[in-house]
Amino acid sequence: MKPWPASSARPGFRSSLYLLGLTYQGFGLLMALFALLALGWGEDARGFALGAGLGVGLGKVLQGLGHPQAQPRRAEVFASVALLWILVPALGAVPYWLSGGLSYLDALFEAVSGFTTTGATVLADFGQFGQSLFLWRSLTQWMGGIGIVVLFLVVFPQLQVAGRQAFFAESTGVEKEKLTPRLRHTAVAVLRVYVLLTGLAFLAYWALGVPLFEALANALTTTPAGGFSPNPQSFAAYAPLVQWAGSLFMFLAGVNFLLQYRLFFGREVKPLWRDAEFRAYAVLVVLAGLLLALYLYTHHLYGLEESLRHAFFQVISIVTTTGFASVDFAQWVVPAQAILVLLMFVGGSAGSGAGGIKVVRWLLLFGLLRREITRTLHPRAVLPLRLGNRVVSEEALRQVSVFIFLYTLLFGFGTLTLALLEGSFVEAFTASAQAIGNIGPGLGTVGPMGSFAELHPVSKVVLIFQMWAGRIEILPVVLLFSPELWRRLR
Amino acid sequence: MKPWPASSARPGFRSSLYLLGLTYQGFGLLMALFALLALGWGEDARGFALGAGLGVGLGKVLQGLGHPQAQPRRAEVFASVALLWILVPALGAVPYWLSGGLSYLDALFEAVSGFTTTGATVLADFGQFGQSLFLWRSLTQWMGGIGIVVLFLVVFPQLQVAGRQAFFAESTGVEKEKLTPRLRHTAVAVLRVYVLLTGLAFLAYWALGVPLFEALANALTTTPAGGFSPNPQSFAAYAPLVQWAGSLFMFLAGVNFLLQYRLFFGREVKPLWRDAEFRAYAVLVVLAGLLLALYLYTHHLYGLEESLRHAFFQVISIVTTTGFASVDFAQWVVPAQAILVLLMFVGGSAGSGAGGIKVVRWLLLFGLLRREITRTLHPRAVLPLRLGNRVVSEEALRQVSVFIFLYTLLFGFGTLTLALLEGSFVEAFTASAQAIGNIGPGLGTVGPMGSFAELHPVSKVVLIFQMWAGRIEILPVVLLFSPELWRRLR
Ligand SMILES: [K+]
Ligand SMILES: [K+]
Repeated sequence: MKPWPASSARPGFRSSLYLLGLTYQGFGLLMALFALLALGWGEDARGFALGAGLGVGLGKVLQGLGHPQAQPRRAEVFASVALLWILVPALGAVPYWLSGGLSYLDALFEAVSGFTTTGATVLADFGQFGQSLFLWRSLTQWMGGIGIVVLFLVVFPQLQVAGRQAFFAESTGVEKEKLTPRLRHTAVAVLRVYVLLTGLAFLAYWALGVPLFEALANALTTTPAGGFSPNPQSFAAYAPLVQWAGSLFMFLAGVNFLLQYRLFFGREVKPLWRDAEFRAYAVLVVLAGLLLALYLYTHHLYGLEESLRHAFFQVISIVTTTGFASVDFAQWVVPAQAILVLLMFVGGSAGSGAGGIKVVRWLLLFGLLRREITRTLHPRAVLPLRLGNRVVSEEALRQVSVFIFLYTLLFGFGTLTLALLEGSFVEAFTASAQAIGNIGPGLGTVGPMGSFAELHPVSKVVLIFQMWAGRIEILPVVLLFSPELWRRLR
Repeated sequence: MKPWPASSARPGFRSSLYLLGLTYQGFGLLMALFALLALGWGEDARGFALGAGLGVGLGKVLQGLGHPQAQPRRAEVFASVALLWILVPALGAVPYWLSGGLSYLDALFEAVSGFTTTGATVLADFGQFGQSLFLWRSLTQWMGGIGIVVLFLVVFPQLQVAGRQAFFAESTGVEKEKLTPRLRHTAVAVLRVYVLLTGLAFLAYWALGVPLFEALANALTTTPAGGFSPNPQSFAAYAPLVQWAGSLFMFLAGVNFLLQYRLFFGREVKPLWRDAEFRAYAVLVVLAGLLLALYLYTHHLYGLEESLRHAFFQVISIVTTTGFASVDFAQWVVPAQAILVLLMFVGGSAGSGAGGIKVVRWLLLFGLLRREITRTLHPRAVLPLRLGNRVVSEEALRQVSVFIFLYTLLFGFGTLTLALLEGSFVEAFTASAQAIGNIGPGLGTVGPMGSFAELHPVSKVVLIFQMWAGRIEILPVVLLFSPELWRRLR
């Protein structure tokens, strides 16, 4: 029963507080800029002003309570990740609440949906928001997206969580080395691709006739696979060529950013073509797109070009978990919708901003199943499982299994709760699937032209939880609620 | 490139043919008895007569083509299990087809639904069948049920498949010993419990006022968790006390038969109470029953006794995958249905005739998840997982994971196919869930008072496949379609 040393009470937690304090101050300054922007556009600036004050003020306090630490322990890193991804949205919600005419719960929903790059909206009337709020909304997705890509490509592989140590060994060429300089290089490489793709998307949309502001806002939400649009009609409001451009940039948003770096900045095509995940992703998009197009065309829903365009747009939008819509697919017949619902459980590539389970995990899962067939017949066979040329450790396979179970359980929990509260099975199922996969639209009233505004407050809390947990691959959130983590942090 | 020795061409396959031939002859003789019974009741006996002829004739031919083998190899056992569970229903379908006014596909659906103890019916008009066909239908479930219990308690644990080697070590006390005498004892013990429960259920139903024939038919389908009833209203046709009795005997049908043997024949209560699976099963039934009763009562759907009765009846019926109904729950509001839909994925105890994933696998899954939380914080910790007092091998855990993945994928495949073909999401989802879990009723048109008659023929084929694969825990069916098994059998 020794007393805690006063100087290092909760030392682990203090590094999380320090990081959160710095982040809050950064967002406070950014919101100060947005307050000026709102003033310049003649819009209500009070929300941004309060957000700026809270961000800087609370940030200073948190920084003071905390303490920097060069090598935080595992428990601290997990706690920091989980806390950042809910407390930053809690601050970012202030402008929606004070200047956007939303309740704080709705504002939090919109902010979590932004920072997690989900794109589900509680906006029923898009006239409630000024341009400054729409730009803020798009920027939250852009920032959330780059945060996630860095988390997935730099932090999680180091921590060996959810199998991520096994995914990028080939594309990065680093594993179990002293990582720091190379990690900084990785983060910078990813940022360059991210900025490049955003810029190209902006130029393409704008050149093809989208109004300047909407082109910018949509470009900011394409690259992170976000899906927020200031236009209530999403991409259905734009010309066919813009929709094709949207498909292209959404497709790229679902591709491993390190491989894109080597493609665009190193002119290396081979690593991309040889990547098992990219090939599976490309084949899936083509097959699902053609199947859906065939269905739409043969059932006389659209002409040939239109069938291909809408099919590929929606398939890519759902697989990459972006959530833009070129048409209100909530009005489609069930068979066409069924294809999209199935794709909600795939997710893009593991090294991109896409949400969901991710293609590489499906590859490993199918590998596990194939191996089990052989093992059932040869119980004593030793059968290493490969991804590309590298053997995947049994530990990584176990983590992938556990991740998929957690994902399925959280999806089932959300579906049940929403079915109990909303009384519609299709809405509950698709709302839950889109939230945990950070996709955006569901079907029925929560379809791409619909809104989550009318849901029960408890349903909104459940969806916020699913967006948050789904975005950071669940385990950090589970850990945050486990007594074991708090014992470690004492 | 050595030629096959002529005398032992396909030796493995030949032991499967031999077993199938014997089984066919047995069912042929049984159908001959049913032909006499049909004649005695003044009903159409042609179907049973043809079945008897085909059974004995084909059986002789198959026996001649085959060869007995005392110690068949693993591949042969899997092939035999998979073939038996589809080819016996193919024979058992003949009476429905020739004397029941069904197409052969519908007859096969009904027969597979019977032998797999699913209980989904294509009968829209119960007047199509005479008593002899209804008795045959009930008996297929009774025989399928005892076959499955023996398979699960005797054959699969030996083969170490789907984790089953880990489930019964405590209740049987045997593991990796020379098993044969004890296995025969196990099979006999299980049969005694099975006959006892069936007899008690019959007496209870009959004593409480159910007509003699229906009491017998329903007792034959209660113990195997089958759910076929000659009455189109299922248990909704009977008095409240009969429904309570049905709940009790369905509950017992979902309990490990070895533990029941020790309870009823050895007067040992402790093994049951100490069994982790039984405790979880009992707690789940009580909690889900109370929750559903509370919902039904507070929403003024029924009075207090009626709420409790219908809630517990339906909860037990779905958890044990029996599928009887005391009320048409397809007419309930969505929240009440949602509880039942969730329970469709639980399943009863692993040592019973219940289908589905099984309670013990859920216990191991939650154990895996809990362990992963600890491992994430302490990556180098060695953490054995226990069930009761015994450590579960990592191999068994891996098999359980793979089984749940296969189950989920086959469920998803069925849901997608049915959604594409039927155009209703709820029907597709619940029809797929009930088929793979061998439950019986779904929701909507395929609810407990509905029928699968109107489905697309391809949907029926998909459901037949799901019932078949789900009943024998999927892996044998997957193996049957794997080139690797056929290479081994050459
Ligand atoms: K999204
Ligand atoms: K059943």
